[in-house]
Amino acid sequence: MSLILASGSPRRRELLSLITTDFTVKVSNAEEKTGEGLSPAETVEALAEIKGEAVFSLYPNDTVIASDTVVSIGGKILGKPHSPEEAFLMLSSLSGKTHTVYTGVYIKNASSKTVFSERTEVTFYELSGEEINGYIKTGEPFDKAGAYGIQGPGAVLVKCISGDYYNVMGFPIGRINRELKKFSI
Amino acid sequence: MSLILASGSPRRRELLSLITTDFTVKVSNAEEKTGEGLSPAETVEALAEIKGEAVFSLYPNDTVIASDTVVSIGGKILGKPHSPEEAFLMLSSLSGKTHTVYTGVYIKNASSKTVFSERTEVTFYELSGEEINGYIKTGEPFDKAGAYGIQGPGAVLVKCISGDYYNVMGFPIGRINRELKKFSI
Repeated sequence: MSLILASGSPRRRELLSLITTDFTVKVSNAEEKTGEGLSPAETVEALAEIKGEAVFSLYPNDTVIASDTVVSIGGKILGKPHSPEEAFLMLSSLSGKTHTVYTGVYIKNASSKTVFSERTEVTFYELSGEEINGYIKTGEPFDKAGAYGIQGPGAVLVKCISGDYYNVMGFPIGRINRELKKFSI
Repeated sequence: MSLILASGSPRRRELLSLITTDFTVKVSNAEEKTGEGLSPAETVEALAEIKGEAVFSLYPNDTVIASDTVVSIGGKILGKPHSPEEAFLMLSSLSGKTHTVYTGVYIKNASSKTVFSERTEVTFYELSGEEINGYIKTGEPFDKAGAYGIQGPGAVLVKCISGDYYNVMGFPIGRINRELKKFSI
């Protein structure tokens, strides 16, 4: 029985490596679609579960971890931007304000299952158009919910947070570490 | 005129590299001693200034950044531990509780000077003796105030924070980035 990370995110791989190097990565091709009218927390938990189940159905003897992250601001949910223009709009909407990052986590093996989410509030500095464009030019925004990564060059966009930093970077590795101890791996 | 980081901390070097690679490192041998009865914020500002002035006096044509960090819990200030036993006591005192990390920053060149500090609240998970000893064995505690680093293996000790994560990791690079723009370098 081994541990599978059902995520292609290099940040999640790096974070899981902090607690074990004994895992493999299998990315699901599940369609990431949820019902209407879900809260952000319900959305990330449902999406983590969809991704996780798709991989667990192929590896039912292993322990699977899956995850999903969204950014929520003013009742709007931000996923990954598809163009520099969309990244600019997203980052402009975050400038000088506090938004909430939700990350859902699914862990399952043959004998146990848990699905939970964590929320972290993130406050951005007021950003000039020049700063936003400079950040977009680094290429960082395009694989990240809300068009930024809190680590690397995005570090200087963020004034303060309330909650788990790693929940913003990839997933809440401290809580995952504790939940995994309840699983027999 | 160039930028000098007056700190031997590899974390601070890594953080400063996020905004510029055009700096050199010069570590002061100044005696890190302050007067009695200072608050934690006054202490880190005074120590940052002592370290910074020692380097600035040698390089008066450059811009010098210096910094100091302490951990404060229950009215007690924790610096770096000098033995595994001291690290164990420090980490035990942080277990399951919220402490405050203060980092003071000094920036000076021939025309400007600023000294400020940032505070971040950090809440630890309840840690077992086994977890604490496992962490001490990584060797991480010994060059860090409060006997832990929030990055790397120490990530899983921390439940949540309130404030700037980078203020805990090394220094508040977002604010430093903004302050440096007021200096002509």
